[in-house]
Amino acid sequence: MTTQRTTHQLSSPVTVVGLGPMGRALAGALLEKGHPLTVWNRTPEKAEDLVARGARSAATVAEAVSASPVTVMCLKDYATMYEVFDPAGEAPAGRTLVNLNSGTPQEAQAAHSWAGERGMEYLDGAIMVPPPLVGQPGAVFLYSGSREVFDKQRETLASLGDPRHLGTDPGLAVLHNTALLEMMFATMNGWLHAAALVGSAGVPASRFAELAFGWFMPTVVSNTFFLEQAANLDKAHYPGDLGTMEMNLNALEHIARTSEEQGIHSRQPHVMKEIAEQAIADGYGDRSYLSLFEVFKKAAQAQGPSRPRP
Amino acid sequence: MTTQRTTHQLSSPVTVVGLGPMGRALAGALLEKGHPLTVWNRTPEKAEDLVARGARSAATVAEAVSASPVTVMCLKDYATMYEVFDPAGEAPAGRTLVNLNSGTPQEAQAAHSWAGERGMEYLDGAIMVPPPLVGQPGAVFLYSGSREVFDKQRETLASLGDPRHLGTDPGLAVLHNTALLEMMFATMNGWLHAAALVGSAGVPASRFAELAFGWFMPTVVSNTFFLEQAANLDKAHYPGDLGTMEMNLNALEHIARTSEEQGIHSRQPHVMKEIAEQAIADGYGDRSYLSLFEVFKKAAQAQGPSRPRP
Repeated sequence: MTTQRTTHQLSSPVTVVGLGPMGRALAGALLEKGHPLTVWNRTPEKAEDLVARGARSAATVAEAVSASPVTVMCLKDYATMYEVFDPAGEAPAGRTLVNLNSGTPQEAQAAHSWAGERGMEYLDGAIMVPPPLVGQPGAVFLYSGSREVFDKQRETLASLGDPRHLGTDPGLAVLHNTALLEMMFATMNGWLHAAALVGSAGVPASRFAELAFGWFMPTVVSNTFFLEQAANLDKAHYPGDLGTMEMNLNALEHIARTSEEQGIHSRQPHVMKEIAEQAIADGYGDRSYLSLFEVFKKAAQAQGPSRPRP
Repeated sequence: MTTQRTTHQLSSPVTVVGLGPMGRALAGALLEKGHPLTVWNRTPEKAEDLVARGARSAATVAEAVSASPVTVMCLKDYATMYEVFDPAGEAPAGRTLVNLNSGTPQEAQAAHSWAGERGMEYLDGAIMVPPPLVGQPGAVFLYSGSREVFDKQRETLASLGDPRHLGTDPGLAVLHNTALLEMMFATMNGWLHAAALVGSAGVPASRFAELAFGWFMPTVVSNTFFLEQAANLDKAHYPGDLGTMEMNLNALEHIARTSEEQGIHSRQPHVMKEIAEQAIADGYGDRSYLSLFEVFKKAAQAQGPSRPRP
């Protein structure tokens, strides 16, 4: 059984277009899992070590895409993808394109239509790990678009990482990727600014990290807490009994004021404070801090103190 | 041994001044641990149920503070503390004041001097859990100020939670509290905005939470990662080999643009993007995202593209 699956994987040829650090990681993982591999890059020198490992370097995109039923693409952006594919003419028809560029949901949706017009099947995807982790256990890849195409390509996709299908809307993979990265950046920004804050009093980041990540985050700001609270967001249920937006605004004012007193960068805490003020203006003063969700769901211009209290 | 310690705890009288939700939780925990308790509040009605449980309600702050060697105080802010203590005259001399207000480090330092002038020993502290968790195992209380005073009061403080002494500078407890809360707010803001982002495509927060907190945060943005990386902040060591500030700015641009395309609030991602742009202007374009620490350590006005490249 295992042998048969391995044989099947070995037999499925793949093309990789775009050999930046991520494209090369994808190509390397495919080679390692035994896929006959064709590669193409605007500057062909980038293919050399992959060719030494058994890949075939195509002279044109048309030749590259024709060489395999599925082409995995990792270019700078969607505009680059259109540029690169333009000279390929009819060659891509009947092939499957798996696009791992980053971009916006609208760009992914447009790419899906564009591929359909050229007779290609299309999946949009997002890679959630840095290049060295591609192909390793636990490397998650998000995909969206046709479930049928996803299922058909699942074994090839599994050579790159753990493939998860998020829905048929082609924009969903990029949207989830964007949202998850925002969580990462926001969390990092919080940590780095907090470290700068205690650093202003001479406390080393490594000492503060023990309190912050050894105790506070796993205990007080735990993943389990958010996981449990998520259903309340969907119900717009924000009981204020453990702390209200007003109380939290008080804390946010202290954070902004302390940043200024300590002579460090204060834009980030000021903006967090202003967003909480907007939540209060919108009528959430006696609700929990999670009611900020209601502020975030609407474009800023649609909001104001005149909105009815929820 | 255990019996002796318990007896000792039972015999140490404490006064609590300020009976808001947190003050009442502190008083409740002290009663539960067997401390003879005196309380005072501007509106004495708030003491009624504590009196029913065995506390003594003092008529004045002077009487309250005189009743016990140590007074734990939890008022709205430092200004309120001065107001409340003003009529107490000489009564507080020789007593220990443990102040759990929130405020800024400068306010805590000023309060320390103020207490010293009145012949009081002073500890500044911060409570890191909501009222229902006070007195429970794992409830962390941060303290700063004289180590000697802290050690002398440790058994009383242990009745409230797990006391941690951060240093002799009285501002450190409030500063750490502020920094940790900022991490909490930043992480929450990231999650709530990300949930709004996927919500704009009809994805329920509870479904996104499984990906975000069931996989992404514990795996990709793990506490262990930050803990391991903290020493690099102290060394200003920001290798860009797993991803540079430039690459991350590209992602932050997608987050801001996607927020707009999806018609949700976009101020937060725009500000994160602008901070990353400042890091690049400051010369960190080829360093890791963690080099944002260098931006945060300085007041905004001190920075600009003309600073020498690090």
